[in-house]
Amino acid sequence: MQSVYLEDIDAETYAAYVSQPHATVIIPAGATEQHGPHMPLGVDAMLSRAISGAVAEKLGALVAPTLSYGYKSQPRSGGGNHRVGTTSLSGATLTGQVEDIARSFMAQGFTKVVILNGHFENYQFIYEGLEVAVGRARETGADARAMLLSYWDFVGEETLEAVFPDGFLGWDIEHGGVLETSLMLLLHPSKVDMSRAVDHPPALLKPYDIFPEDPARTPASGCLSSPRGASADRGRLLLDAVVDGVASAIEAEYSLPVAVLGVK
Amino acid sequence: MQSVYLEDIDAETYAAYVSQPHATVIIPAGATEQHGPHMPLGVDAMLSRAISGAVAEKLGALVAPTLSYGYKSQPRSGGGNHRVGTTSLSGATLTGQVEDIARSFMAQGFTKVVILNGHFENYQFIYEGLEVAVGRARETGADARAMLLSYWDFVGEETLEAVFPDGFLGWDIEHGGVLETSLMLLLHPSKVDMSRAVDHPPALLKPYDIFPEDPARTPASGCLSSPRGASADRGRLLLDAVVDGVASAIEAEYSLPVAVLGVK
Amino acid sequence: MQSVYLEDIDAETYAAYVSQPHATVIIPAGATEQHGPHMPLGVDAMLSRAISGAVAEKLGALVAPTLSYGYKSQPRSGGGNHRVGTTSLSGATLTGQVEDIARSFMAQGFTKVVILNGHFENYQFIYEGLEVAVGRARETGADARAMLLSYWDFVGEETLEAVFPDGFLGWDIEHGGVLETSLMLLLHPSKVDMSRAVDHPPALLKPYDIFPEDPARTPASGCLSSPRGASADRGRLLLDAVVDGVASAIEAEYSLPVAVLGVK
Amino acid sequence: MQSVYLEDIDAETYAAYVSQPHATVIIPAGATEQHGPHMPLGVDAMLSRAISGAVAEKLGALVAPTLSYGYKSQPRSGGGNHRVGTTSLSGATLTGQVEDIARSFMAQGFTKVVILNGHFENYQFIYEGLEVAVGRARETGADARAMLLSYWDFVGEETLEAVFPDGFLGWDIEHGGVLETSLMLLLHPSKVDMSRAVDHPPALLKPYDIFPEDPARTPASGCLSSPRGASADRGRLLLDAVVDGVASAIEAEYSLPVAVLGVK
Amino acid sequence: MQSVYLEDIDAETYAAYVSQPHATVIIPAGATEQHGPHMPLGVDAMLSRAISGAVAEKLGALVAPTLSYGYKSQPRSGGGNHRVGTTSLSGATLTGQVEDIARSFMAQGFTKVVILNGHFENYQFIYEGLEVAVGRARETGADARAMLLSYWDFVGEETLEAVFPDGFLGWDIEHGGVLETSLMLLLHPSKVDMSRAVDHPPALLKPYDIFPEDPARTPASGCLSSPRGASADRGRLLLDAVVDGVASAIEAEYSLPVAVLGVK
Amino acid sequence: MQSVYLEDIDAETYAAYVSQPHATVIIPAGATEQHGPHMPLGVDAMLSRAISGAVAEKLGALVAPTLSYGYKSQPRSGGGNHRVGTTSLSGATLTGQVEDIARSFMAQGFTKVVILNGHFENYQFIYEGLEVAVGRARETGADARAMLLSYWDFVGEETLEAVFPDGFLGWDIEHGGVLETSLMLLLHPSKVDMSRAVDHPPALLKPYDIFPEDPARTPASGCLSSPRGASADRGRLLLDAVVDGVASAIEAEYSLPVAVLGVK
Repeated sequence: MQSVYLEDIDAETYAAYVSQPHATVIIPAGATEQHGPHMPLGVDAMLSRAISGAVAEKLGALVAPTLSYGYKSQPRSGGGNHRVGTTSLSGATLTGQVEDIARSFMAQGFTKVVILNGHFENYQFIYEGLEVAVGRARETGADARAMLLSYWDFVGEETLEAVFPDGFLGWDIEHGGVLETSLMLLLHPSKVDMSRAVDHPPALLKPYDIFPEDPARTPASGCLSSPRGASADRGRLLLDAVVDGVASAIEAEYSLPVAVLGVK
Repeated sequence: MQSVYLEDIDAETYAAYVSQPHATVIIPAGATEQHGPHMPLGVDAMLSRAISGAVAEKLGALVAPTLSYGYKSQPRSGGGNHRVGTTSLSGATLTGQVEDIARSFMAQGFTKVVILNGHFENYQFIYEGLEVAVGRARETGADARAMLLSYWDFVGEETLEAVFPDGFLGWDIEHGGVLETSLMLLLHPSKVDMSRAVDHPPALLKPYDIFPEDPARTPASGCLSSPRGASADRGRLLLDAVVDGVASAIEAEYSLPVAVLGVK
Repeated sequence: MQSVYLEDIDAETYAAYVSQPHATVIIPAGATEQHGPHMPLGVDAMLSRAISGAVAEKLGALVAPTLSYGYKSQPRSGGGNHRVGTTSLSGATLTGQVEDIARSFMAQGFTKVVILNGHFENYQFIYEGLEVAVGRARETGADARAMLLSYWDFVGEETLEAVFPDGFLGWDIEHGGVLETSLMLLLHPSKVDMSRAVDHPPALLKPYDIFPEDPARTPASGCLSSPRGASADRGRLLLDAVVDGVASAIEAEYSLPVAVLGVK
Repeated sequence: MQSVYLEDIDAETYAAYVSQPHATVIIPAGATEQHGPHMPLGVDAMLSRAISGAVAEKLGALVAPTLSYGYKSQPRSGGGNHRVGTTSLSGATLTGQVEDIARSFMAQGFTKVVILNGHFENYQFIYEGLEVAVGRARETGADARAMLLSYWDFVGEETLEAVFPDGFLGWDIEHGGVLETSLMLLLHPSKVDMSRAVDHPPALLKPYDIFPEDPARTPASGCLSSPRGASADRGRLLLDAVVDGVASAIEAEYSLPVAVLGVK
Repeated sequence: MQSVYLEDIDAETYAAYVSQPHATVIIPAGATEQHGPHMPLGVDAMLSRAISGAVAEKLGALVAPTLSYGYKSQPRSGGGNHRVGTTSLSGATLTGQVEDIARSFMAQGFTKVVILNGHFENYQFIYEGLEVAVGRARETGADARAMLLSYWDFVGEETLEAVFPDGFLGWDIEHGGVLETSLMLLLHPSKVDMSRAVDHPPALLKPYDIFPEDPARTPASGCLSSPRGASADRGRLLLDAVVDGVASAIEAEYSLPVAVLGVK
Repeated sequence: MQSVYLEDIDAETYAAYVSQPHATVIIPAGATEQHGPHMPLGVDAMLSRAISGAVAEKLGALVAPTLSYGYKSQPRSGGGNHRVGTTSLSGATLTGQVEDIARSFMAQGFTKVVILNGHFENYQFIYEGLEVAVGRARETGADARAMLLSYWDFVGEETLEAVFPDGFLGWDIEHGGVLETSLMLLLHPSKVDMSRAVDHPPALLKPYDIFPEDPARTPASGCLSSPRGASADRGRLLLDAVVDGVASAIEAEYSLPVAVLGVK
């Protein structure tokens, strides 16, 4: 296959791939959400797609079209759903989307499905969709299996120390910060404008949510920490750690023989 | 703005755009569906996105991330949902997706929403989502409006005659045929392999549906008519007709002053 | 059985019928919708019920109670949901109704279900309900099958030429026009008042939908073309064509031995 | 108007009616359910429609198309959903149907909606639909009101004594018994075959439900008490009591000036 | 086990219990609803939980956590949902809760589930949830069974005569009356304040519902009949009758060997 | 009021409370879930209820009946939904329950609603329900506000150091560990049996989920870390920290004048 992105390949090539015992499909899940003045709205979708692609190349897997819209952004992890630029799904729609798509892949013959998440708030609603999809598929006798992961959970201590030499303050404030900005500088440098990056102290997040949201709880930039310190080099460290970790986990769970399935 | 695709622009630029009275967002709706051995699975998503982009450039509108998965393919218009390569949503999920996204854009301030459809089977489920979204938004006092269209409905008689010199046999059998192939040859030539195109007579469609589907009702190629005769030149005729027609309709309905909003 | 309408027969007779291998149930799907000043609101329900009855008599099938309410009328096929006299269901309710009723018939032993549609806007939502119902029934081991059709799709070229000697302008503008009026003049003459029919040129439909609907897009009469030219004789031509075509299709798909099942 | 059934009247006459301050629409709710060997499957739909018609004539109201399918029959009131001949809706579908239809009538201008129920098991699901419909309509500023009733709740002590001279044993066992049979003998005599009526003691109902249902809990006839004693004369007593009671209740709640609205 | 309430026992003891062939779980269903000035809002939840506990002790069953919120209170059985103090669920949520919980118990191995209802308005929505849960569990091969009952349906004629020496006026007006008050005086005496009980004639209920509710239809006290005459002694008569009746019914349906399963 | 638990107070006292400007209702959300051999299944429900009660006493707030069933337990935070003893809701049901109950309290006049969560997996589904409930209530003009919190997010660094002198290993493995056990030893000592506590190293959690769950991923005890080290004294430290923190947050957000509202 010339591409790991399934939208680019034809139905016959695809059918031949699915019929292999180790066929694996990775579905990237992102969001359309503000990421400050220095990065575009599509960061979560772009990163989950690119990371899925890198993992797929390593494993000989296919990448499905990205879920481009995500669950409502929350002030404690993404700035909040009230910010202009953030376009969201309800929980039921996101869950339904995952259930439908996972079951559709399983009906075509896939027994190995992975969802690679790139937007914190999505996780539980995707979990529910996958749980139902796998349960229903297995009721009908299919040998269906699925995995769900958020890519940042594969960044280890060593990488964190290299990327955050002054100390890592926690994933919750990484929205629009060093992690995402570094990965974007590596993967989509033309879509980042560091001259517009706002340098401010990390947001002091309150340990609860309020409704309706209070705009004053989110920094004016929309980022929860400063992207200063982001670089393509750090993006490379992060990407390598994530791709290695995710690929290893999928191999281990699905017993994939990498060499056989490799793209070329 | 450097791009009409909103995932590429930052939140501040986006917010400035939305605050303009004539701000318009176009949401492309496609599918992930087999299109024969000569074209990739993403044809409907790619075409609706590209056409939306061309319309947006003309109007100074923005294009939202594409709805990449569509309603179940049917034998009378797309070959059928049983074909490997076709990954579909239920009606409720597609409707929910449209309702959520349209309402989310309206909540950010958009009063002019357009959905440009590129997969026949989507239409009624999108209609339902838009009808509810606009109704709910207006209940809360918003001056929300929306339009829904399928791009091929803007190809006029004259263009049909030029593209189908031997006579046009109807939209229903155009799945994977001259229309889509010509547009792909123009817009994504590297993703079409005409050497793999299968030349066969048009499918003789029965005027009803059966459940479960009968695979024998769809030609083995997955296309409902032959792509022979497709060319990038014909794609240009089709694209120009569609973009002109759609842009004019949006201008007329939304009273858009094109010059002011133009990308440049 | 004295009647093909199952509401008229008793449970024991019904049970004996269902236990036959060729037992077939036809469910008419209509709407409650304005049809101009010369016809009643129940046209779609009345026609789908009467045509189902004629088909059932020919095949020895039973007709279930009509789905009297349909999906929202659209300006491009029925005048629009904003017209007084049009009372509609949401897509989800119509789909749920079809799913519940089809599954209920299958649970009683029917393996041959037909839905005969008489309201354009219903089709996709019925499709979704049938698709799910058959899929679920088959998961539990039932040999369930279903068919879905709109009656006008069985009017052939020859009939169209006889009924529309000045040329047929397309099904989309037939709402309240010659087709429906002729069938009503044949089947329910007392419910048509041709003295109130409005003669006007065919509606010029735009190739897209807008929300909220613009009442000015629909002719004041509520009909999309003139009923002038309608007659009971033409109704007979249409009915014969439809009943023959539908009955043949059901026979072919379900291998029905007509003589055995005939009502008498 | 020539008919109280709105499916029989045209849109202009209907629109004129709706615009009157006292316009009232009655929606009959029935079921498709076995009623023993002596009565047809459509009893609940037929009776609710006929009674609604009689009430409407008295009040000058309109009758909407009947809800012909009802909630699952239960052994303690209708024999049970497992009986062949009983075709049912889920609770959510019935509720959705009521909500959609009631809101659709309210959107056309009706402020006075009545649902007249003829199938015991429907009541709570209709209640939920009406409660939501009226609440939503009032949120948008409409002066919407609704009533819900089951017709047998209007049979008073005196009538009971006349109809059941040997003592009335309770509504729960009236399924297929004297009440329904008498009304059918009056209103649809040709659809009753008393020679097939089975005379057996009243069913001894247990005060609880079990799942899955136990067919042995329902008498073989499908009726919960004997129809012996049914007659058209008793049907007349019952009908008069019901129609008077229901009409009076509607008049009182909706302050209807009977003389003005009368059909004639 | 030291307790019949499963929230009080540990997972290992619970697992050992579930693995027994006669393991039975009783789920109490109540409401949070006004019960006049002399009783607390939790009456329905408290009574269904206490009665379930007494039945469980007799049978060696376990009692699940109570469903503390119920379906909307209605004027004809509970005063109405508009009363301050009444906090309710929609029908769909209550049905979903029952379906989820019943299926979850069945997935853990329970084949004998009972729901003991203490709030009139809940019954049909619980029925729907149980019907679906048992059907789905059985589709997957489980030998699942369920029972549904309202506790007052087990009070026989003899008990009624003892508790209501002046004549029993019907269950519909028992909300906040002698039945519930007597049981509370027995089971939770500290939560009843008879000095605040209001003595008034029984409510004259109309035989229909209206929307929106008319507060004037409910007595100011919120009770539909006077609690005068309530006493702990009468509570004992009622409780004994109910516990005996319910336990016998469960034993009979589930063939439970009481001695073996007893708590001690 | 004699109790902060609203199920214990009567409707008139409740109505008087709700009419105060500072009336606040706290809804505890728990689960029914295995917590190892040394603790009962109801831990999450018991702790969220008790903590809510302590906060309510401090603030003069009321505590609503606990949501006793929670979202599906996950291996990375609660051991997993496959463990016997874990009885769960789907995401949609939990969201619906929160939406219904929150809206019901708002309809009675509460403008200050708090949900205090005690089961990790619940959070996002409660968030969705509250977000919708507040949005809908505000659409109808109500001045509704809500807060959502998980109690352990209020345990500060200092308390962690006192409770975990050997170092705190993270909230994710606290299921059935020192935190919950200490609080239970303080609040419900008779329901804890430390002699059955299993001492094992903390679970090594994988950074992703798989479907279907792999029982081997959870320690045999069902706890993710050892409860050794738990004590009522440490429970007191934890409780004081949580109650102070939560009460302060509610006071600050809702501007509550504590002295006025205090229970005494």
